[in-house]
Amino acid sequence: MQYQINQIGVIHSPYATKTSCPIQGVAAPMGEGFVELFPEYVEGLKDIEGFSHIILLYRFDKAGEVKLVRPTFLDDTAHGVFASRHPCRPNGIGISIVKLNSRKDNILNVSRIDVLDGTPLIDIKPYVPKFDNIESATGGWTEDKALRPKPEGRE
Amino acid sequence: MQYQINQIGVIHSPYATKTSCPIQGVAAPMGEGFVELFPEYVEGLKDIEGFSHIILLYRFDKAGEVKLVRPTFLDDTAHGVFASRHPCRPNGIGISIVKLNSRKDNILNVSRIDVLDGTPLIDIKPYVPKFDNIESATGGWTEDKALRPKPEGRE
Repeated sequence: MQYQINQIGVIHSPYATKTSCPIQGVAAPMGEGFVELFPEYVEGLKDIEGFSHIILLYRFDKAGEVKLVRPTFLDDTAHGVFASRHPCRPNGIGISIVKLNSRKDNILNVSRIDVLDGTPLIDIKPYVPKFDNIESATGGWTEDKALRPKPEGRE
Repeated sequence: MQYQINQIGVIHSPYATKTSCPIQGVAAPMGEGFVELFPEYVEGLKDIEGFSHIILLYRFDKAGEVKLVRPTFLDDTAHGVFASRHPCRPNGIGISIVKLNSRKDNILNVSRIDVLDGTPLIDIKPYVPKFDNIESATGGWTEDKALRPKPEGRE
């Protein structure tokens, strides 16, 4: 089965290049940007201001070749793409949890952003603590990996 | 811009109907199912066993009409679709955090499932506590809403 996905907005960030973009938002919590939702969808933002964090779904439109097993930004050992958040993945959909600072019409000011400038937006969902905060969760191979700058040349 | 998304597997759950399906996995933590990843992607699961929870991305293939503002399963007051997890949304992509119990080849046994049986899978990502567990997050209009059975007849 195949599905058609339509871009619904644009994510604007301070990160013009893959090298400058942090590996995760938590590594650069002050990095600010804004989410521009196309005006025809603006009604769908009703009551979003009450949430401190939102989940962005977007298209990894600058991603390179998909490999099912490869080293990641966080680790030089290769892991399966479904056991990592690597951008080069089947269907090329990224998710990022960002902090929602304010909203003006169809523009959401956010921080904790880890997305390339100009990235196509495909959905916005609220981060709902009682659904998404899983205190008992364990992080597999990521547990003992410290956040670090992206290794040079690593896709 | 438009993108093509390919189904990469099938989510199997005990929930054959929308009425029987819990509104979120946290409402039925023991509900068990399994994720069948199509065999050509199995390599991508390397090291997934170490994670206690995974994030499923899937297609809401049984969703009804998209309305940008509507009541939700959790609340009779209408909210914007981007301020809720409502299934009838632009691009129709759902995310669920499920507990990973075990893996055998391309089959992942999971619980805390809130997805209809037969739902098309489009991605699997690990739930990484240091990225995804946001203890300070606040839940807007959901904060004082208790989990409840789905209101009768509500899409």
